[in-house]
Amino acid sequence: MTSHTFNVDMTCGGCSKAVNAILSKLDGVSNIQIDLEKKIVKCDSTKLTAEELLTNIQKTGKKSSIVA
Amino acid sequence: MTSHTFNVDMTCGGCSKAVNAILSKLDGVSNIQIDLEKKIVKCDSTKLTAEELLTNIQKTGKKSSIVA
Repeated sequence: MTSHTFNVDMTCGGCSKAVNAILSKLDGVSNIQIDLEKKIVKCDSTKLTAEELLTNIQKTGKKSSIVA
Repeated sequence: MTSHTFNVDMTCGGCSKAVNAILSKLDGVSNIQIDLEKKIVKCDSTKLTAEELLTNIQKTGKKSSIVA
């Protein structure tokens, strides 16, 4: 299991809910933590790489990048 | 060309920007109009059906449905 951190341009609770909804559907993703104010999304992943997670997060239409 | 209307649960300018970004990338989609307050998204489409457009809009993680 690997922990990942992303910067995601979220501006309201609807934004963070949308990101949470996308990540929740992914296989092997757990412990999703979203800090709306800092625009930071953290999660653990057993199957997907940071790049694969980022591709999914970007499907929300929000500017996103890998932090760690 | 067909005009479509969707109800999309957007709550801020970031939400509507995200929906606009997703629709803008689709082939044959034009005249995108978003009313954030009424949670309404309208667009014209030459190739994709309403169901196909809805599938793409739902990738934003927001609750969405076809209005017309």
